[in-house]
Amino acid sequence: MQIKEDGYVVAVVGATGAVGREMVKTLEAREFPITELRLFASARSAGEEIVYFGESLVVEELGDDAPDGIDIALFSAGGSLSRVMAPKFAAKGAVVIDNSSAWRMDKTVPLVVPEVNPEAAFAATTDGGARIIANPNCSTIQLVVALKPLADAFGLERVVVSTYQSVSGAGQKGINELSEQVVSLFNHKPADVKAMPHQIAFNCIPSIGTFLDNGYTDEEWKLVRESRKILGLPGLKVSPTAVRVPVFSCHSEAVNVT
Amino acid sequence: MQIKEDGYVVAVVGATGAVGREMVKTLEAREFPITELRLFASARSAGEEIVYFGESLVVEELGDDAPDGIDIALFSAGGSLSRVMAPKFAAKGAVVIDNSSAWRMDKTVPLVVPEVNPEAAFAATTDGGARIIANPNCSTIQLVVALKPLADAFGLERVVVSTYQSVSGAGQKGINELSEQVVSLFNHKPADVKAMPHQIAFNCIPSIGTFLDNGYTDEEWKLVRESRKILGLPGLKVSPTAVRVPVFSCHSEAVNVT
Repeated sequence: MQIKEDGYVVAVVGATGAVGREMVKTLEAREFPITELRLFASARSAGEEIVYFGESLVVEELGDDAPDGIDIALFSAGGSLSRVMAPKFAAKGAVVIDNSSAWRMDKTVPLVVPEVNPEAAFAATTDGGARIIANPNCSTIQLVVALKPLADAFGLERVVVSTYQSVSGAGQKGINELSEQVVSLFNHKPADVKAMPHQIAFNCIPSIGTFLDNGYTDEEWKLVRESRKILGLPGLKVSPTAVRVPVFSCHSEAVNVT
Repeated sequence: MQIKEDGYVVAVVGATGAVGREMVKTLEAREFPITELRLFASARSAGEEIVYFGESLVVEELGDDAPDGIDIALFSAGGSLSRVMAPKFAAKGAVVIDNSSAWRMDKTVPLVVPEVNPEAAFAATTDGGARIIANPNCSTIQLVVALKPLADAFGLERVVVSTYQSVSGAGQKGINELSEQVVSLFNHKPADVKAMPHQIAFNCIPSIGTFLDNGYTDEEWKLVRESRKILGLPGLKVSPTAVRVPVFSCHSEAVNVT
């Protein structure tokens, strides 16, 4: 990827979602070198305005084709959209950084945590590279940051990890559900269960996503597969337990390594 | 201990606390054979009334001496009181079942979970027995119930356990703190931190009790020592992480066994 001293044309795809909004805030807070910021969303959310450095940017509708002239595209609009649109952006010269699970286990796409395997990201952006970079599940990110120095210093035999995952992992609807349930319960009304499989207010739910045939949830299995890929340890034994807790944002984990 | 067909004289010491009240409720719900129920508390709480099978029982002040004629005494009034008073009750012929941490690691006192090592309780109540039975920390109880059949069938090499512990483990003041903090925050007021080391509303706190020199909290170290004693496996490797979660009651645990 060409270094541009002046900055890059950056697109945020899924800009009106909970993660997309954080992406815009982070680009602003980090003063990422941007010459033009373009925000995309579905037809339903197009036309909304998001403030970036004091300026209201209008969210554009993302059509069937990728726009021209994008250098870097940050995707957080769900796996099915990423699967279709990320290659189209890449074909038009953008480097796509995808927050969905669509490309994480694709052999041609690197799965990157910058503190752990930045070299995989560099390789993807050079000529002939994938031009799509996947980032892992939020729980995997903090896990591999802790594991990497241990792997380098001692090697890893087995990892046991238990998560304490906030409702923000389920997006804005998870945040709303916790808030609404707490208000209902404290007003002596029943708690409506919509976004989560059970009441999350004043409760922990040891099931995130769907159960797989192997008895783990897909959220747990991501911790296994993604950690192995990022660390380059395909045989690593990982025993995960993923639990949703009634916290708005910020995940935690208990990790035991042998 | 003598079997009494008609029932027993039962005392609850610490009857006005959160656990004491549950003890009275459970005795009623289980229809435990009782000829007389006597409730004791400190001078501060003496005189309060607690309903048992529709009858209001007046809570008595516990003096320096144990009362006469008690068959079974359930203690939940803190470790320092148990250390002084449990032997006095036992000397007067009562069998004391102590919920505090005072006697758990005493070599002459059995630490019992009825589903795991009931024989230790029986031994304590026979002539010449300790006449004090300790029950373990709440997290240990559910852990050893899961471990016991595995230990019998396969043996245990190492146990990794992470807890999700409700605020009721900190007593009524823990329950009040979560409730008050949630109300404050949802009214745009700051959350007062009193009973816990940090805000517990919409937060998880990976520190219960005090930190020991070995880097674990005492809550975590109880899981190690008590599990070893109950299972009769003094060399068992246990790696515990104890976390307080914003849930009112009912603990959960993630356990990994090799």
